[in-house]
Amino acid sequence: MSFKDECAVFGIFGHPDAARVTYLGLYAMQHRGQEAAGIVSSSPTGFRSRKRRGYVADIFDEDSLEKLEGTSAIGHARYSTSGENNDSNTQPLYIECKFGEIAVCHNGNLVNAHLLRHELVEHGSIFRTTSDTEVILHLYAKSMQRNREDAIFDAVRTVSGAFSLLFQTPDALVAVRDPRGFRPLVLGKLGESYVLCSETCALDLIEAEYIREIEPGEMVVIDKNGVRSLRPFSEVQPSQCIFEHVYFARPDSYVFGRDVHATRLAMGRQLARESPVDADVVVPVPDSGVVAAVGYSQESGLPMEFGLIRNHYVGRTFIEPRQSIRNFGVKVKLNPVRSVIKGRRIILVDDSIIRGTTSRKIVGMVRNAGAAEVHFRVSSPPTTGPCHYGIDTPKREELIASNHSIEEIKEYIDADSVGYLSQDGLLGAVEKDRDRYCSACFSGNYPIELPTQGRDQLKLFEKVRD
Amino acid sequence: MSFKDECAVFGIFGHPDAARVTYLGLYAMQHRGQEAAGIVSSSPTGFRSRKRRGYVADIFDEDSLEKLEGTSAIGHARYSTSGENNDSNTQPLYIECKFGEIAVCHNGNLVNAHLLRHELVEHGSIFRTTSDTEVILHLYAKSMQRNREDAIFDAVRTVSGAFSLLFQTPDALVAVRDPRGFRPLVLGKLGESYVLCSETCALDLIEAEYIREIEPGEMVVIDKNGVRSLRPFSEVQPSQCIFEHVYFARPDSYVFGRDVHATRLAMGRQLARESPVDADVVVPVPDSGVVAAVGYSQESGLPMEFGLIRNHYVGRTFIEPRQSIRNFGVKVKLNPVRSVIKGRRIILVDDSIIRGTTSRKIVGMVRNAGAAEVHFRVSSPPTTGPCHYGIDTPKREELIASNHSIEEIKEYIDADSVGYLSQDGLLGAVEKDRDRYCSACFSGNYPIELPTQGRDQLKLFEKVRD
Amino acid sequence: MSFKDECAVFGIFGHPDAARVTYLGLYAMQHRGQEAAGIVSSSPTGFRSRKRRGYVADIFDEDSLEKLEGTSAIGHARYSTSGENNDSNTQPLYIECKFGEIAVCHNGNLVNAHLLRHELVEHGSIFRTTSDTEVILHLYAKSMQRNREDAIFDAVRTVSGAFSLLFQTPDALVAVRDPRGFRPLVLGKLGESYVLCSETCALDLIEAEYIREIEPGEMVVIDKNGVRSLRPFSEVQPSQCIFEHVYFARPDSYVFGRDVHATRLAMGRQLARESPVDADVVVPVPDSGVVAAVGYSQESGLPMEFGLIRNHYVGRTFIEPRQSIRNFGVKVKLNPVRSVIKGRRIILVDDSIIRGTTSRKIVGMVRNAGAAEVHFRVSSPPTTGPCHYGIDTPKREELIASNHSIEEIKEYIDADSVGYLSQDGLLGAVEKDRDRYCSACFSGNYPIELPTQGRDQLKLFEKVRD
Amino acid sequence: MSFKDECAVFGIFGHPDAARVTYLGLYAMQHRGQEAAGIVSSSPTGFRSRKRRGYVADIFDEDSLEKLEGTSAIGHARYSTSGENNDSNTQPLYIECKFGEIAVCHNGNLVNAHLLRHELVEHGSIFRTTSDTEVILHLYAKSMQRNREDAIFDAVRTVSGAFSLLFQTPDALVAVRDPRGFRPLVLGKLGESYVLCSETCALDLIEAEYIREIEPGEMVVIDKNGVRSLRPFSEVQPSQCIFEHVYFARPDSYVFGRDVHATRLAMGRQLARESPVDADVVVPVPDSGVVAAVGYSQESGLPMEFGLIRNHYVGRTFIEPRQSIRNFGVKVKLNPVRSVIKGRRIILVDDSIIRGTTSRKIVGMVRNAGAAEVHFRVSSPPTTGPCHYGIDTPKREELIASNHSIEEIKEYIDADSVGYLSQDGLLGAVEKDRDRYCSACFSGNYPIELPTQGRDQLKLFEKVRD
Repeated sequence: MSFKDECAVFGIFGHPDAARVTYLGLYAMQHRGQEAAGIVSSSPTGFRSRKRRGYVADIFDEDSLEKLEGTSAIGHARYSTSGENNDSNTQPLYIECKFGEIAVCHNGNLVNAHLLRHELVEHGSIFRTTSDTEVILHLYAKSMQRNREDAIFDAVRTVSGAFSLLFQTPDALVAVRDPRGFRPLVLGKLGESYVLCSETCALDLIEAEYIREIEPGEMVVIDKNGVRSLRPFSEVQPSQCIFEHVYFARPDSYVFGRDVHATRLAMGRQLARESPVDADVVVPVPDSGVVAAVGYSQESGLPMEFGLIRNHYVGRTFIEPRQSIRNFGVKVKLNPVRSVIKGRRIILVDDSIIRGTTSRKIVGMVRNAGAAEVHFRVSSPPTTGPCHYGIDTPKREELIASNHSIEEIKEYIDADSVGYLSQDGLLGAVEKDRDRYCSACFSGNYPIELPTQGRDQLKLFEKVRD
Repeated sequence: MSFKDECAVFGIFGHPDAARVTYLGLYAMQHRGQEAAGIVSSSPTGFRSRKRRGYVADIFDEDSLEKLEGTSAIGHARYSTSGENNDSNTQPLYIECKFGEIAVCHNGNLVNAHLLRHELVEHGSIFRTTSDTEVILHLYAKSMQRNREDAIFDAVRTVSGAFSLLFQTPDALVAVRDPRGFRPLVLGKLGESYVLCSETCALDLIEAEYIREIEPGEMVVIDKNGVRSLRPFSEVQPSQCIFEHVYFARPDSYVFGRDVHATRLAMGRQLARESPVDADVVVPVPDSGVVAAVGYSQESGLPMEFGLIRNHYVGRTFIEPRQSIRNFGVKVKLNPVRSVIKGRRIILVDDSIIRGTTSRKIVGMVRNAGAAEVHFRVSSPPTTGPCHYGIDTPKREELIASNHSIEEIKEYIDADSVGYLSQDGLLGAVEKDRDRYCSACFSGNYPIELPTQGRDQLKLFEKVRD
Repeated sequence: MSFKDECAVFGIFGHPDAARVTYLGLYAMQHRGQEAAGIVSSSPTGFRSRKRRGYVADIFDEDSLEKLEGTSAIGHARYSTSGENNDSNTQPLYIECKFGEIAVCHNGNLVNAHLLRHELVEHGSIFRTTSDTEVILHLYAKSMQRNREDAIFDAVRTVSGAFSLLFQTPDALVAVRDPRGFRPLVLGKLGESYVLCSETCALDLIEAEYIREIEPGEMVVIDKNGVRSLRPFSEVQPSQCIFEHVYFARPDSYVFGRDVHATRLAMGRQLARESPVDADVVVPVPDSGVVAAVGYSQESGLPMEFGLIRNHYVGRTFIEPRQSIRNFGVKVKLNPVRSVIKGRRIILVDDSIIRGTTSRKIVGMVRNAGAAEVHFRVSSPPTTGPCHYGIDTPKREELIASNHSIEEIKEYIDADSVGYLSQDGLLGAVEKDRDRYCSACFSGNYPIELPTQGRDQLKLFEKVRD
Repeated sequence: MSFKDECAVFGIFGHPDAARVTYLGLYAMQHRGQEAAGIVSSSPTGFRSRKRRGYVADIFDEDSLEKLEGTSAIGHARYSTSGENNDSNTQPLYIECKFGEIAVCHNGNLVNAHLLRHELVEHGSIFRTTSDTEVILHLYAKSMQRNREDAIFDAVRTVSGAFSLLFQTPDALVAVRDPRGFRPLVLGKLGESYVLCSETCALDLIEAEYIREIEPGEMVVIDKNGVRSLRPFSEVQPSQCIFEHVYFARPDSYVFGRDVHATRLAMGRQLARESPVDADVVVPVPDSGVVAAVGYSQESGLPMEFGLIRNHYVGRTFIEPRQSIRNFGVKVKLNPVRSVIKGRRIILVDDSIIRGTTSRKIVGMVRNAGAAEVHFRVSSPPTTGPCHYGIDTPKREELIASNHSIEEIKEYIDADSVGYLSQDGLLGAVEKDRDRYCSACFSGNYPIELPTQGRDQLKLFEKVRD
């Protein structure tokens, strides 16, 4: 019940079945982006591409994968913002320029893209998408460097913000992670071939071996000579996104070198210590609250039961009936189990409260099912600010915790009590790495500020095209 | 990890938004049939129909529901067997005959359909589908009765087997449940309109009130004069499908008058009593084993953790890589959480073992993740026979428990121990109703025998058409 | 500028490439029906079918023809009346019954179909289309005969009207032409295989040899034993459709044993003799008036020039501009050549005048292009009655010649003179066969009367289905 | 039976129904390009675009035209070269740059596009198509001029070759014709709005008034202030394409200020004078030879008859049968009328002979139909060289007349005699304008030479993309 992440990236070099493996990798990371996906492979006769809206498993079939020839491929799954079917923003982006063909996919958000774009356009560049990522391709195409590797090196030094990038050129696969390492990126090995991906669950599915994280600020070039590591950026303090552990990543993944399930379990245990309550049963809000609820149950000694059942068959659009149904938006996903809830004091565990509207509906649904009391526990601190580094959060004024006290939130969602995990408790869950994480959305300490000028010019290019 | 059910049915009479409500009802019951769905509505200018392969939420949109005019509608979601896109077998089936238009949808399986079909064809009837259900329409179209209600009464008395049927005529909605009541069917009320559906979770989503089960052997006619109950069949002992409680139904539903979650929890508890084992953690096979695992955990006092993570984004087809991946078929759905499993003694809880191949892959996956021991516990008895009453089971010889001892099964799936719930323990979970259930697939006591002749003629009609 | 014909039929028996040859045959006869087409082939594992709306060349491609396996096939091209995309009326119709599979396609119109249908429905038959042709299949499926050939013999004796039928059974290709032979049907030979089709232009394209017409009232059975001829009907006077020569057939075809081009040329010559006029140039209304215009030019000694150019790229729908354009409906097809028309006295030659509205627009267009005089000449007599035998004519009251004098028609279409070919002149063009033709639409002498009762019951079944 | 032209262009400014009128205009000029079409309209909220492969009448429907809002639009119909469905080369091309949105469509061929492209790419421009036309857009986007009009002026001065261009900016419609005026372009008026299009037949359909040709070397700007004429180029001798009169243009059009029908008739008359033959009948090869055949018939006094019938229902692909059919490629389009041909001495009239293969098949077909003699007459001179100015001709070595004498051609196509129109006779048909025409493909006198270097670099960009 939470934010939308930006995307998953996957790349492989030197595998006879590159597109198929990329497909599997994207499939394993589908939770990171469910609205569009694409793969670009590098065949001996040129790049091959397939990008569409929809689930990975619906976009590709035997025929389309067969056409994605080549021993190298990169792929992307994303949340898409516009309504067009042939969304030109769908990644990987792919161009041809003086250096030949290049494709790129991006997890993150650039904070100076609009300024760079404005400048490039003034000098005659023609953009074909409204994506930040295209800026990088224009910088590459205009680079005065002699070779591709140096041109990528140049281009990524010009941009600022959060980025885990994969580039595919005719002879190499290149990964770049921004100096603060906001978004994850790992390196694996599958037989003789190398794999790069956002989460380790993708390595598990294809049975690749996990080697290591790409480090914050590292650029890795993989080609026929093997793996080379470069350092395009000056060193700064890392700011890895703590929300990967709270919500985004799959619990079976390792992210930023840590087991997500264990971290999330620790958050639930700590939440039970910080915010105990006398009740009968712990009920997770599925699926995001499940692991923390197990931790809460273990620490509190209260039993956990599945009092809310999730319907997993949600399609792209959902047609409302003309009549109004109470808590409709939530009902299409969740339904209470009366025998679990009726007459009992319930502790609901979720990962976060954003606007409060969904939480309010869930509490209402549980009350209607006959709960004696409803206590809401959140396995992260109050979300008080938006993310500028790749998470699609609402504006600050829409975040309920940015302008309401916990008491007011309790009133609004109609719970008998509300408890959040403390910032200290949250960071305790990542133990010795606590200084390497970004918690800007809780703390207001933004590691990179947004440029305050130049946004206006961008509007010129924000229209949706055919 | 189990059988495929045949379908869900839904009908509503007297609602201004009939097709939309039917859509929501099917959506809530999508777990009962995920390959095709359809709705037929009754508009003042004739019936309107939309049937397609795919998920309910993908088949219907604003436009298509708008076209399904009328205040009465029936709908169906099913597993489809043939590969054709415009599957003529997709329900509701819809014809026009001397009584005017009629549509029907069916949950169950007729045991004498092939004999009746052969006879009808010999007398010149032309079938357009290979579906059992079409036999009922031909019996209706040839009935010598004067009115529609009597013609339906006639038609359903001729067929034998498992059937929960909904008929829509230009002025009525008719429900019929076979005399043994194999498959569920309930009556609800939404404002002034009546609803019929397979499971109560559909009533919850549309906020309809649950009135009662349609009784085994009952025929209910709903028209502008209200609800009438008829009894076309002689009374026999009910044989409700126990597997609805073990696996098919959603845990938030009431089925055969019982709370599914509570029944399934009781099965898990009883399993712990019957088949305890010294271990560290209870791990459910998601999603089918989750509720029984909670019961097992509660009764045994062992903690439950989510050591297997399920990927819910499975598409219709899944492309295998050319390389072989260990346990591939299971991997696209499940991935282990190493921090839960490594070095621990695991109790896996699932609802059933059919062929054993999937269970074997899961045990292998858990062993590869480092489990110290793997104990497999099943919340139902060994499945020794196929179902003739609407469940798509493999043939007897493919059921591992039909020709292997528990010790042999343990060897095959490579578990440290295997434990099943006893038949007595299973039926204990439905308490006072234990004599009203069919357990033929465990016990071999089939309430209706299959006709042994006539199957050959049927083959003539089993081809797939354009 | 004229009527719509009902369709083309094509069949082939004993050819390794049956579906492809059928495709070519339909393609050659596309002018007989441009809205839908279909092919059913007979493969060793059952019939294969593909039917769609659209042009033959757009419906079939390499893949779809590949799937239409088998050495026997029948096909159909037609004007379709309803707006549905998956028009169940599209032929060949195809069913399975006690005799096994059978497919049928039909050129013509049955006059007693509605009565037979009503009776069949009363006895429990379920129709799936609103097509007359389906009646024949139900009669076949209910036949008490022992074998397929006799059952077809029975079925066609029951129906009355105009029909050139092709049946395909698992082991034979059967052709039937009604006793009056309203619509054409010819037999050809391609290597060792036999071909049946509406027009000889289909034989030309596939390089088959023309053998002979199927005679009025003849039933021909083609199977592995060769060709057999049967006579299901009592002999009557033939009534072949004269309009095949006036308009429908391609000028490069032989129809009813006559060369269409030569017949049409003779009509134009006779028209010049009967209806001369002092003018400068003969201008055909393309394409229907072209051959007659050549004849008129030759006989009159006046030069022929192409003063009207036809646009052949007309799509299925045509979008009108919001502004009104003069003579718009005609303009999308025809445009005048000013250098031909300006200042000259024009003789326009067309094959017929139906409602007069199109002719009026054409005359207006020619006048706007600067014609000094416009004389309209028609290579057939005034059309005073509708056709009941397979031509889609408007109702009598919409036929301008049914209730207006030639003088009034001249006034309405704003021509300087109007001249029609006489009935005697028309029939003279077919020489010695003049008594074997139907001219009911000119003369009012209908060879078979329509049953006057029973039409009302039919309405029940005339609705469009999903 | 001839070359493929490059395209048709159409534009309108200041009309409430701009996209619909553009659709009609393209429809009227469909003969100039039948594989793809597109329209870009200028709405108050930005440009709207629809481009697809296929016929104009199939690409657009009520809905799609409704979405093409705005009072200004340009459109294009073309032969497409690559096989992709979403062909990025389909015009109008449309970008956004520092000057805002701009769309362009192009009839013709640039001879220095590859050199300019190479240079632009070296400086960092990213091309998205393989179309010559995109070069113009990059020149525009990089122009240092202050306003759009000046930037267009700059851009078109840089390119060289054949071009009739239409540009649409947010506030103007701009037409440019290259200084030699290879391809046609006319100006018309529809009420208060201005129209630009390739041929006058488009004006006829929409009932616009023909004003004048855009002159060779003229640039016309149409905006809210009316029509302005500019002269970007130094004056040179015009070189209008004579093949527009021989073959491309519709006979009902005015092209380069001349009536096409009259010109083509004069060519046929002159051909009869230059190349008479003792024969029985003149038979045109439809549709390209029809008007010249009328001229030949008139001058020679021999009758013309339609001995070859053309099938107009040719689809995009045509499936060959596995068996070989004589003259198959021609047979799908043409079929002989035996009664016209048999036993007679035939004069076939066509507009040109390119490779000779088609002519050979046609002669063979006429001989098979029983012709006593077959004389081939061509209403243009022998085609000895390729076109560099927008016509898709084969390479020089494939042109039969480039390396064979007329006697050899006669032998190859198996005619009794072959006669071509002389160059002098051809140019005589355009009378006083004879010096304003390009006849390079006959004479070898190319008005602009091709740059001989730089072609190699282009290959880098010639691959087909997704």
